[in-house]
Amino acid sequence: MSDLYSQPVFLLGFGGVGRALARQILAARARHAQRNRLRLVIVGVADSASSVMAPSGLPDAAILDLLERKGRGERLADDPQPPALDSLPAHTIVVDTTATVATVPWLMEAKARGMGVVLANKLPLAGDLRWWDAIADARARWETTCGAALPVISTLNTLLDSGDDILRIEGSLSGTLGFLSSQLEAGVPFGQAVRDAKAKGYTEPDPRQDLSGLDAARKALILARMLGYRLEMRDVAVESLYPPEMDALSVDEFLREADALDAPMKQRAAELTVGGRKLRYAAEIADGKLRVGLVGAAPESKLGGIRSSDSIVVFHTRYFSDNPLAVSGRGAGQEVTASGVLGDIVSLSRAMRR
Amino acid sequence: MSDLYSQPVFLLGFGGVGRALARQILAARARHAQRNRLRLVIVGVADSASSVMAPSGLPDAAILDLLERKGRGERLADDPQPPALDSLPAHTIVVDTTATVATVPWLMEAKARGMGVVLANKLPLAGDLRWWDAIADARARWETTCGAALPVISTLNTLLDSGDDILRIEGSLSGTLGFLSSQLEAGVPFGQAVRDAKAKGYTEPDPRQDLSGLDAARKALILARMLGYRLEMRDVAVESLYPPEMDALSVDEFLREADALDAPMKQRAAELTVGGRKLRYAAEIADGKLRVGLVGAAPESKLGGIRSSDSIVVFHTRYFSDNPLAVSGRGAGQEVTASGVLGDIVSLSRAMRR
Repeated sequence: MSDLYSQPVFLLGFGGVGRALARQILAARARHAQRNRLRLVIVGVADSASSVMAPSGLPDAAILDLLERKGRGERLADDPQPPALDSLPAHTIVVDTTATVATVPWLMEAKARGMGVVLANKLPLAGDLRWWDAIADARARWETTCGAALPVISTLNTLLDSGDDILRIEGSLSGTLGFLSSQLEAGVPFGQAVRDAKAKGYTEPDPRQDLSGLDAARKALILARMLGYRLEMRDVAVESLYPPEMDALSVDEFLREADALDAPMKQRAAELTVGGRKLRYAAEIADGKLRVGLVGAAPESKLGGIRSSDSIVVFHTRYFSDNPLAVSGRGAGQEVTASGVLGDIVSLSRAMRR
Repeated sequence: MSDLYSQPVFLLGFGGVGRALARQILAARARHAQRNRLRLVIVGVADSASSVMAPSGLPDAAILDLLERKGRGERLADDPQPPALDSLPAHTIVVDTTATVATVPWLMEAKARGMGVVLANKLPLAGDLRWWDAIADARARWETTCGAALPVISTLNTLLDSGDDILRIEGSLSGTLGFLSSQLEAGVPFGQAVRDAKAKGYTEPDPRQDLSGLDAARKALILARMLGYRLEMRDVAVESLYPPEMDALSVDEFLREADALDAPMKQRAAELTVGGRKLRYAAEIADGKLRVGLVGAAPESKLGGIRSSDSIVVFHTRYFSDNPLAVSGRGAGQEVTASGVLGDIVSLSRAMRR
């Protein structure tokens, strides 16, 4: 086992995905040794409050201890310190599983030091184009920013490397809005559908974060930027499922007053589903533009054919024209996202060993 | 442009896919330079009759000339010579777009010389396990052996690198048998459906090559071997859609006598489609075993939901369980296969530059 390659990994974020990732790294030790001649060495863990640095690697027992501390709601370290990337090896891979732009300075420092970067956090890649230009290169991976572990980013990269030409991408990238769309299509009033979705745990604590469409728009923006579209979020046409006045309400007030949207949403759904079309909240990327909102999808189309709980991305290309290339399946969840992040770490480690 | 990396490529096979690939290599020059800092240099072309070797690279005009010669049915070279791999650079990528095991010695020699290998030809990878062991390593790519350019192999590799566990793979991997299944399901008699499929150009010149199921079985065997199953073709349970006695017939005799199979096929289809299930010719890989044949798929399942002209592979994993990961779309065709081969060449060139 002495010929294993040691890959230092720094975990930026230790919430649900970060902790699932730490557990999966430990569980995959034998597989990585056998299949990839690889040993992932966790050289540090940081959350928003504190960090633990261990340039020579945290023992597995220490990682389990951190998982327990965090599970009990305790701090990672008694003495809060920001992460010190300068103490880590230059070939470290920094893994961002947070959901905040506060990590951008660390990501920038990692890139400047020649480190690798893996993101499950879409905010840095859907933010300022200068961040995109600095981060999204061959020493970065971001598969799970768009549909969790679904192979969307890798498929797009392969198409871009191939002899094919991408004409249009469409995608349904929000499980929450997929559920809501199917409820509206079935005639459930909007307010009730929103409250049901929240009760089932399908939404963020504030459902407006889903209903605004911004999360779906960020995923689509990342795909558009990979196509070379120089767009900022303000250039994206995003249909919010509630009017901006309702941003001023508390969550409880919003949930109560959402019934006021029943009638207009019912009409919009009816208009879009004439002739048996299926109601979807979808992104469409084509001709240098990106729009995200409700659409009526032909029932025999790939977008129209998915189950409401599935995410899907459909690539219409020169060679995949009548039968477009579709990737579909579960597009959210902490464990599946962590598994995709782990795939990215292995892929990037392999590429960085050049 | 002086910092482009020159990647020597040797084309073994100059039929429909090989020629489409040569055209796509020329057409993608600007894209590869800009996106990949790469220039693909064709250092030789061989078909079953002759070869042209050019260790320093064939000029584009010479490639166009070869395309024209071959289009006119002429030999590549007046003086037939077998390919001489020893004249090529050690970092050459040998690309097999044939459909014969006759290339195996060249592939073995290429591997022994440390060259890269890209296969669209599934026969070497679905043949003797010793061939598999010698060829299918990190210096080989074979995306288009299973569903043309659909990202099936890359998705499986990513799942194997990730923290996930693959429980079962099912796939409908033959457009021909997909078409036939939908015809049978619609009540078209078997003999007529076969003749229709041949008339539409959906089958091989001898439709028994499709009906035997062996082509679909080879694709599935490649996936199974990637999972670590040590299977040979003789270990695969393959359902042929005609009895072995009919192998002795000429093609015309077979097409005439296929009507004799109308009644038994009608009964088999009826049994499998009770309760509205959809008739599919599918592979199932699970628990160390591989079977290929007609199945009745639940209409709400991913396998049951595709159009008959689509190929699909469905990955049931630990984390993609209720919502399995599916890749679907056009799974055959010379241009789309060539585009996938080109993606493989770029990917392998990047990996070999380490």
